[in-house]
Amino acid sequence: MLKLEDNERLIRVGAGKPAGELMRRYWQPALLSEELPENDCPPVRVRLLCEDLVAFRDTDGRIGLVDAYCPHRRAALFFGRNEECGLRCVYHGWKFNVHGDCVDMPNEPSDTPMRAHVKILAYPTIERGGVIWTYMGPHAHMPAPPDFEWTRAPATHCFGSKTVEDCNYLQAMEGGLDTSHASFAHNNHLGNNNTLRNMDTAPRADVETTDYGYRYISTRKVDESRRYVRIYHYVMPNQQMRGAFTSLLGDGHDDDPHATPKSDGHLWVPIDDEHTMVYNWACGRDQSAPLSPEFRDRWESWAGRGPHDLIPGTYKLKCNRANDYLIDRKIQKTQTFTGIKGINTQDYALQEGMGPIVDRSKEHLGSSDKAIVALRRLMLDAIRAVERGEKPPGLDPRSHRNIRPYDAIITGDRPWQQAFAEELVAKW
Amino acid sequence: MLKLEDNERLIRVGAGKPAGELMRRYWQPALLSEELPENDCPPVRVRLLCEDLVAFRDTDGRIGLVDAYCPHRRAALFFGRNEECGLRCVYHGWKFNVHGDCVDMPNEPSDTPMRAHVKILAYPTIERGGVIWTYMGPHAHMPAPPDFEWTRAPATHCFGSKTVEDCNYLQAMEGGLDTSHASFAHNNHLGNNNTLRNMDTAPRADVETTDYGYRYISTRKVDESRRYVRIYHYVMPNQQMRGAFTSLLGDGHDDDPHATPKSDGHLWVPIDDEHTMVYNWACGRDQSAPLSPEFRDRWESWAGRGPHDLIPGTYKLKCNRANDYLIDRKIQKTQTFTGIKGINTQDYALQEGMGPIVDRSKEHLGSSDKAIVALRRLMLDAIRAVERGEKPPGLDPRSHRNIRPYDAIITGDRPWQQAFAEELVAKW
Amino acid sequence: MLKLEDNERLIRVGAGKPAGELMRRYWQPALLSEELPENDCPPVRVRLLCEDLVAFRDTDGRIGLVDAYCPHRRAALFFGRNEECGLRCVYHGWKFNVHGDCVDMPNEPSDTPMRAHVKILAYPTIERGGVIWTYMGPHAHMPAPPDFEWTRAPATHCFGSKTVEDCNYLQAMEGGLDTSHASFAHNNHLGNNNTLRNMDTAPRADVETTDYGYRYISTRKVDESRRYVRIYHYVMPNQQMRGAFTSLLGDGHDDDPHATPKSDGHLWVPIDDEHTMVYNWACGRDQSAPLSPEFRDRWESWAGRGPHDLIPGTYKLKCNRANDYLIDRKIQKTQTFTGIKGINTQDYALQEGMGPIVDRSKEHLGSSDKAIVALRRLMLDAIRAVERGEKPPGLDPRSHRNIRPYDAIITGDRPWQQAFAEELVAKW
Repeated sequence: MLKLEDNERLIRVGAGKPAGELMRRYWQPALLSEELPENDCPPVRVRLLCEDLVAFRDTDGRIGLVDAYCPHRRAALFFGRNEECGLRCVYHGWKFNVHGDCVDMPNEPSDTPMRAHVKILAYPTIERGGVIWTYMGPHAHMPAPPDFEWTRAPATHCFGSKTVEDCNYLQAMEGGLDTSHASFAHNNHLGNNNTLRNMDTAPRADVETTDYGYRYISTRKVDESRRYVRIYHYVMPNQQMRGAFTSLLGDGHDDDPHATPKSDGHLWVPIDDEHTMVYNWACGRDQSAPLSPEFRDRWESWAGRGPHDLIPGTYKLKCNRANDYLIDRKIQKTQTFTGIKGINTQDYALQEGMGPIVDRSKEHLGSSDKAIVALRRLMLDAIRAVERGEKPPGLDPRSHRNIRPYDAIITGDRPWQQAFAEELVAKW
Repeated sequence: MLKLEDNERLIRVGAGKPAGELMRRYWQPALLSEELPENDCPPVRVRLLCEDLVAFRDTDGRIGLVDAYCPHRRAALFFGRNEECGLRCVYHGWKFNVHGDCVDMPNEPSDTPMRAHVKILAYPTIERGGVIWTYMGPHAHMPAPPDFEWTRAPATHCFGSKTVEDCNYLQAMEGGLDTSHASFAHNNHLGNNNTLRNMDTAPRADVETTDYGYRYISTRKVDESRRYVRIYHYVMPNQQMRGAFTSLLGDGHDDDPHATPKSDGHLWVPIDDEHTMVYNWACGRDQSAPLSPEFRDRWESWAGRGPHDLIPGTYKLKCNRANDYLIDRKIQKTQTFTGIKGINTQDYALQEGMGPIVDRSKEHLGSSDKAIVALRRLMLDAIRAVERGEKPPGLDPRSHRNIRPYDAIITGDRPWQQAFAEELVAKW
Repeated sequence: MLKLEDNERLIRVGAGKPAGELMRRYWQPALLSEELPENDCPPVRVRLLCEDLVAFRDTDGRIGLVDAYCPHRRAALFFGRNEECGLRCVYHGWKFNVHGDCVDMPNEPSDTPMRAHVKILAYPTIERGGVIWTYMGPHAHMPAPPDFEWTRAPATHCFGSKTVEDCNYLQAMEGGLDTSHASFAHNNHLGNNNTLRNMDTAPRADVETTDYGYRYISTRKVDESRRYVRIYHYVMPNQQMRGAFTSLLGDGHDDDPHATPKSDGHLWVPIDDEHTMVYNWACGRDQSAPLSPEFRDRWESWAGRGPHDLIPGTYKLKCNRANDYLIDRKIQKTQTFTGIKGINTQDYALQEGMGPIVDRSKEHLGSSDKAIVALRRLMLDAIRAVERGEKPPGLDPRSHRNIRPYDAIITGDRPWQQAFAEELVAKW
């Protein structure tokens, strides 16, 4: 249960709102590189932290991310012409470069002083890991760019995707950081207690605060001599990195995509208070084993967000709230816990099903919700730090550049710190 | 014309609102029995008096009606598993029985004290007359269950249906209690003045207040020696019972469903302030003459809410506001008064056509609106009674258990009390 | 840039709002004559200046424009029967004539005094130029009917159309009065600098205030000895009249509809604050050359609002905001400035793309926006005049009855006043 006042501080992401200002202190994904596939390609609408923007890749490959509306008379730059190193409004031909400078104003006399002083809002961008990142906070506070292991891996070993979720980022992220629901919501083999997560539905959980956020350790008993230990990272303010041993969720077939050793994760990026763009990444752990495009499609499809799962031309799921995620009650009786296909879709059903903004004054948290409680506390502390004029945690890329998540079975009494010592260090 | 303040008191049905609190003192239909066709069948969403709930029929056939959201983290229980005498949330497996007790909490340690004190909001239910009723008011004020004649009749002689209406319950109910519109809106045989209601378009109306609400008597002159008398009941707070002689509305063909002697009626149950679930019932008066499924379909189709009139998978009409109820202007010129097919649909066009909440400050009531005025007065009085801590009328089922509606032609001067003495008494 | 307060005064059009009261001092188009094609035809919904109305053509051909709701119990008169010189409500049969008198009240006793005093709100109407006009202001201030040249031309030489635009009337009208965007948004022949408007993208502009609004003169240099002069009229409060020489926008083919000498124009009529009905008219200048129906279709189709461009049964464009106006990025690269087909559709993309109400506090006006600035000043002055109890400009039809727009190339130093002296005078 969270006080209404604290909830409000956590969920509102517009400029000037507590969580909005916190989010603006970090580099955030604005769109996927694939959305701007070539120089001078069509501009793309971006809504981010309640702001309407438009992105374009200019003639030299630079990325612009500017106000959605022309400063002249507020026509939509989405309809603009992306040409000769700038985006040109089709109303009166005003043209802006990636820095927001007005480089042409053809409907005014050629000597107009206006051209020099008219600018369009433009945010800095950087392209890493198949993602175009932006920084929307005060210029003086701009941190060094993100430097996660997966953003350094080559495209042969890393891929990304994104899907729209129709609820606030926090309840979506809370679903991601929650470990114990995997035994239920994602149990896709009813009656099969051989999947490790099903053996012990009430794992022990530990949360260790770090420079970048926290490290979460859940421990499930397998049998008298073995335990399954899962370690994931919460990276401030809105990323999760998860381990490779999720084959335990798989079906055990030879083509189960879980068998491939990799890390994966999500970033829950607020579109606005009631919509979230979830960025998904996966990164091979084995430098000698590239992740093929076929693997990518198989993995994404298994999650429920593959090429055939999206409404064409959008990043929205075909199975969505309007059609009850195509729940199949017969399959729910006999095969899977939810009757909903795809882990990603299962999560959306649960997170969107709460309504756009969950009423946290009515919740009842238990010991299994330790990660959720820690998340909220860290976020509230960081918000207060920003309000006091201090730096929130995790801005320095050195805090996160070497981390890697992991999970595996440990035999005997070896502590995980020792058993996983090598596995928890980034290799890319 | 109604004062804005009184209108507000009558139309708002959320908890804590005057009419909302009044409605909560009576048993209300929550759904049809047929919506939960068997034990452990899929749960069903119910929105009632502005509250979001979910209904389920458990392994033993008991009906649960509980909060739509799990008290743990507010996942939607609609996606839940209905199994082994309880509804289980698919997020973390918490499970609740029909009384709202938490009977399983598998993601917490087995000795957690939380299980004992966590409950989910659960309303009592009872199943009668093909309807699942619930009571949402203070426990101490719970009345005896409803005991209308039609709820006692066997399923062979009684049937029900429901359709969603996109307006406030009061303007829908006012349409039902209004007698004089039948001569106009429901005149489906233009130029045929042999239907009795068309003979005399300005009937005399009398309203007699009773223990359960009121009895309404309309009298139309047929000729010098005969009069057509129609008696219906308004049963507090939102039911109407109507007579059998509605063959006068029919087409006179042999298969006219009006020829079968029966009572029928409606309950206008608020979904919220701007949506109403209209429950329809019909009950044979003749114990030796069952109402067949074919008859049911014929009757419902005649009204415009038959099996082919609903959008599949919903209780919404195919002919609706978005398509102007498929009004046919040529038929309106030549055959029927409205050009709209189906009495039910005609009523919806008129009632929804006012907008979700009609502006009663702009109306001009005449002598034909006596029933409407009486309805509002009774409701306002009952609201005030509840506010004063008193009982509103009609709670005691003895007040309504013996009533039956009726209408017929009376020849000569016999008063209707004498002519109808036997017909107005319940037989089931 | 406009002060928020002034913007609010200009854009709100409901009764009692500053711009709403100004608009109500002028005759306004309510619907096209073709929408009521014959006596006793079906009534038509009209939403105008935030008011919901219904229009009908009675048995004698008179036009009624009355409140959308029956004064009895507020049923929608759209479903009414238009018969025997009046519109009859299908709820209880109350009937109203074009003046708003209740001429039948069949569900009340025949001697009811109600009939005499119940009236329905009815606005006066007049039919001119294929348009049904209404006056919604105070009776004492009703001006003489509109008397534009195009409303006097015979149907053989004049035609009209209308389309819905999903934004405030002011930003739509500002788009119409803006001259310089034609060189950009409406450049449909990329690389062809032979169209005059493309030769000089920063025309000189002059605004001359008149009794009816203003006259706008733009001058583009063609070559050393020639200039292209365009004169249009802004007629208070929401009309533009444009010249005939728009062949310069055309494609130069023999069947280019611009080659036909005519005037054309728009009226931007507020439906409500966020929706506008744009009325379009065209009027032949040559009395010996009628405008054929084929010409009409060709002209309207060229603009993007022809018979095949509308969603059937509506006045809405198939190419609209929901489908990004079917912008074709390849055509935008190679053939037209916007990649959007149809001048009308191009304008809608720009005007609706700003959102329903543009944020004028963020605009940066230049010298090319002289017409926009003059428009706002005139409107604000007129609003203040009405507030002071004075007459706004342009009410007297004598102020506009003789005007005609024009544009052409002038060779040498002749002033346009002399060169166009004859062309700027109405001939119909």
